[in-house]
Amino acid sequence: MPSLPDVMTPALETLAPAGQPAPAPQEANRDALVEWLLRTGDNALILGQRLSEWCGHAPALEEDIALANQALDLIGQCQLWLGLAGAVEGRGRTADDLAFLRDAGAFRNLLLVERPNRDFGHTLMRQFLFDAFHLELLEAARASSDPRIAEIAAKAWKEAAYHLERSADLVVRLGDGSAESHDRMQAALAALWSFTGEMFTDDDHDRALADAGVMPLPSSLRPAWDRTVAQVLDEATLTHPGEVWQQGITDMGGGKRGVHSEHLGHLLAQMQFLQRAYPGARW
Amino acid sequence: MPSLPDVMTPALETLAPAGQPAPAPQEANRDALVEWLLRTGDNALILGQRLSEWCGHAPALEEDIALANQALDLIGQCQLWLGLAGAVEGRGRTADDLAFLRDAGAFRNLLLVERPNRDFGHTLMRQFLFDAFHLELLEAARASSDPRIAEIAAKAWKEAAYHLERSADLVVRLGDGSAESHDRMQAALAALWSFTGEMFTDDDHDRALADAGVMPLPSSLRPAWDRTVAQVLDEATLTHPGEVWQQGITDMGGGKRGVHSEHLGHLLAQMQFLQRAYPGARW
Repeated sequence: MPSLPDVMTPALETLAPAGQPAPAPQEANRDALVEWLLRTGDNALILGQRLSEWCGHAPALEEDIALANQALDLIGQCQLWLGLAGAVEGRGRTADDLAFLRDAGAFRNLLLVERPNRDFGHTLMRQFLFDAFHLELLEAARASSDPRIAEIAAKAWKEAAYHLERSADLVVRLGDGSAESHDRMQAALAALWSFTGEMFTDDDHDRALADAGVMPLPSSLRPAWDRTVAQVLDEATLTHPGEVWQQGITDMGGGKRGVHSEHLGHLLAQMQFLQRAYPGARW
Repeated sequence: MPSLPDVMTPALETLAPAGQPAPAPQEANRDALVEWLLRTGDNALILGQRLSEWCGHAPALEEDIALANQALDLIGQCQLWLGLAGAVEGRGRTADDLAFLRDAGAFRNLLLVERPNRDFGHTLMRQFLFDAFHLELLEAARASSDPRIAEIAAKAWKEAAYHLERSADLVVRLGDGSAESHDRMQAALAALWSFTGEMFTDDDHDRALADAGVMPLPSSLRPAWDRTVAQVLDEATLTHPGEVWQQGITDMGGGKRGVHSEHLGHLLAQMQFLQRAYPGARW
């Protein structure tokens, strides 16, 4: 089970070694790349933080440990993505600076991952909807023309594949379980569905990276996600919500653009307390 | 209704005017006095913060406004107590510094006031149990030999008297209301009762102030509180919990000594975020 950060995790400084230089991005592409790295890293960080809230509170010991492990996987990934974001940005900000010293408006995560945990079924449904997207994203990123992205994605992909296997399995077991568990999963799906559209919106940054061959457009990941979701919901005997109005996909809104729900502010207040209260603290 | 901080609130610098000098405390008494001011100010601050969490969420508009007003009363009082604490301490810390830049271990509030809000009945029961103590404390403080304490207490006493009138009335209405509201109030009483003992514990600081004639011992406030509580619970048709084990009254524990529940840390993370993230920010 991929879990605790380990010595196998590529160190940032060894990515894109001298023999295989990263393409020097044009200024516009650099901005787009930083944006993509923040979005990808922030998704992992915020969802990891959300999952870590379950630590000591999950309905069974096995689940408690599994959720904590997934949280650690995601926070490990975020460390790599945000570390690379800081390096590409070139303003001297570390992954820790980006995680602990930005306020909500500077975060680029999807609205979906900042949704509160609520009950266990709700947490799992959120996880499944994200995992199914995450795997497609990392699949594409593994083939990126930027070797630094490809290398991080290759590691993260393995973890995401396991996460999806696990969350899909639990969605099926709970959806096709008791009447109570079925109803809770259906309610979670209804509550979260309008936050899924944001994953597949394309903006100028996305188009710049697609033009440069770094990453395909988010919208291109949708058909595979649609297939996975339809199949799992079907097996879980859950009713697909169909077309519903989607949160945050207007020109100005959405987490990808830094327009967040109030939930993110509360999450950051907890997550950032130590570094805010004791600036520069080191273990 | 005493509510918003107003121009009638005594300014700190006008307390104990030149014609009526405060007694120069001995060093030991100074420490005890700072401790008492922190305890009294922190009770008001933390309970005020807790009440403010209801803003926009109370079960009726009238209650929403009433709770927000009480929160403001308490935060206004805290400003005076903590301002005086900082002045007596003589290390240049303002009320804002004390409110926003101390970590949990430096807070001196009772465990009772940091308890989470839970439901409306729970919030009201906590308020009643505290108000009944608060009024006795301020009654005694109005007669303090320290004119600065007496002056702040005279203002705060009026607000506390109104708070107690209101919370006692609601405890009776809900306790002697529907079966549902009665059960909720009884459950709230059971959950909170073991936190009431801490209000009446005496320690060396308390004894130093009592010896100096500044404030009577906390334990001396108990009989009046017992009478008020017994009478209101009786009228509310609630069963008095009797003698139960009390939280935080060992030699080492309790909020008065800075040993807090995890709830305080979460509360502070939210309350202090702005000053932590934007140090020295001014409106």
